[in-house]
Amino acid sequence: MLYVGIDLGGTGIKAGLITEDGTILAQADCPTGVERGHEAVIADMAKLALTVIEKGGKTLDDVKSIGIGLPGVQDPRTGHVPFCTNLYWHDVPVIELMNKYIDKPIYFDNDATVAGLAESVAGVSAGVKNSVFITLGTGVGGAIIIDGKPYSGANGVGSEVGHMITVIDGEPCTCGNSGCWERYASATAIIRMGREVAEKKPAGSIARAVGGDLSRITAKTIFDLAKEGDPDATELFNRYVYYLCVGIVNIINCVDPEVLVIGGGVSKAGDFLLNAVRAKLPSMVFYKAMPYARIELATLGNDAGIIGAAMLGR
Amino acid sequence: MLYVGIDLGGTGIKAGLITEDGTILAQADCPTGVERGHEAVIADMAKLALTVIEKGGKTLDDVKSIGIGLPGVQDPRTGHVPFCTNLYWHDVPVIELMNKYIDKPIYFDNDATVAGLAESVAGVSAGVKNSVFITLGTGVGGAIIIDGKPYSGANGVGSEVGHMITVIDGEPCTCGNSGCWERYASATAIIRMGREVAEKKPAGSIARAVGGDLSRITAKTIFDLAKEGDPDATELFNRYVYYLCVGIVNIINCVDPEVLVIGGGVSKAGDFLLNAVRAKLPSMVFYKAMPYARIELATLGNDAGIIGAAMLGR
Repeated sequence: MLYVGIDLGGTGIKAGLITEDGTILAQADCPTGVERGHEAVIADMAKLALTVIEKGGKTLDDVKSIGIGLPGVQDPRTGHVPFCTNLYWHDVPVIELMNKYIDKPIYFDNDATVAGLAESVAGVSAGVKNSVFITLGTGVGGAIIIDGKPYSGANGVGSEVGHMITVIDGEPCTCGNSGCWERYASATAIIRMGREVAEKKPAGSIARAVGGDLSRITAKTIFDLAKEGDPDATELFNRYVYYLCVGIVNIINCVDPEVLVIGGGVSKAGDFLLNAVRAKLPSMVFYKAMPYARIELATLGNDAGIIGAAMLGR
Repeated sequence: MLYVGIDLGGTGIKAGLITEDGTILAQADCPTGVERGHEAVIADMAKLALTVIEKGGKTLDDVKSIGIGLPGVQDPRTGHVPFCTNLYWHDVPVIELMNKYIDKPIYFDNDATVAGLAESVAGVSAGVKNSVFITLGTGVGGAIIIDGKPYSGANGVGSEVGHMITVIDGEPCTCGNSGCWERYASATAIIRMGREVAEKKPAGSIARAVGGDLSRITAKTIFDLAKEGDPDATELFNRYVYYLCVGIVNIINCVDPEVLVIGGGVSKAGDFLLNAVRAKLPSMVFYKAMPYARIELATLGNDAGIIGAAMLGR
């Protein structure tokens, strides 16, 4: 059987026709147009699903289910999306509305969860029973895969590893707490730290790399300078790696996965980042003489969304 | 069938003959005598197991398995206890050595894990599929129960929630990191904070409560004063509740259990502590409009060790 996977984001919708083992047979996309409201967005998701089935030369009979990854969670009491800040959704019955157009089982889950599931089916953690996926971007998302299945917890509020408090009374977070891990381990955190250094040193290497326009500092600015051995960027990079490892160690000490996969924009720093994390961890894990999670970089990139969403119905 | 559960601690060994549903039919205990080495301790564990079977009027044929809770973990590569600081053990093949005396399946797991399992079978979280147990004592231990079974992770290093880093660059911890949750949420942490206040205010309420001998400050000293409304103790208590909630929220945001059970010496503060934690959490959880773990106090007390150890073989 085949599966349709839909990756619903704030700016675009992507859909793919996917095989049992996570291979993409056909794909299509369109803009989200959040301002049109959820009914129009869901109608477009259904249309895209039918498009990729046709593009793949198949019919609805070949499809077992349709899965959706979205920037929200499922309320176990209602089965609805309780809220979705990026889409301006509130209490949306996604499954019912999709079924108006397509009479197939519909599944949905958080976008990070779906990306983690994709890696565990067709990516770097393929075949691994227990893995954790973290995505380092604007924020920090996470997915816990146990026995090959996404683990969302008893109330659907789990795997929000970005909101582990790692600094009591630390940086204020958008969630209302302070000191959340994503304030220290996201791309946003690297940019904030980079600006702080550049403000202190207006003639320093970081400020010079962006021609004095500090709003142009990105994670890549810092990583590129650190790769060249620039002292300010190296110091910042080392601090970032420590912050990143704090959360990774917390995950290892609690969830103890077989593999921990690093994805998201920051993971584009590649082996430079991976090797630094791998070098730092041994001194930080609790059981120093015991084996612990293998740390790997995600391999599926942007395709993880549609592959993982499709796999929700497996 | 019946089960034998053994609770191996640094000072004493307790054994119990336990039914399928966690009822204790007979029990016995003896001092550990760690200085005699692991072979003598294991011989005594076997002897105690046979004693409780006899005391219960049963024979080995009525017993399905023997479980042991101990202050260590199981190395999945060897099946041995890799090390056990309190017992001075190093690479001890517990199962093989127990089988020299008793030819039954032998299981062992971490003492906190075993206590959490006990609560999930015969205690406050009975019948709950996914729960987390935290024990607040000298340190902070934890157990994660998923689908009714203790979850130790892929490498046996999981559920060490006490060593989540909650304060980057915080208090140095015995594990080599700094800022671990147990530095802020254990009885030891309350005592440290109490001493700090008493040192600053030698004529204050906390110092007076122990007649100026600050070495006599315990968690109960602080809780008793706070219950009476003493301002210094109340401030300290509120700070402690916040620290405790930080780790609880981290567990909720990651593992999202159905029930989170608080055990260990500090939990003797009872409803005073429980109500404070329950009042603080709603503003701290990530998904504020979604349900989250019910917070409960452990009910089995010291019996949790033998009951949970017995249940390892269920």
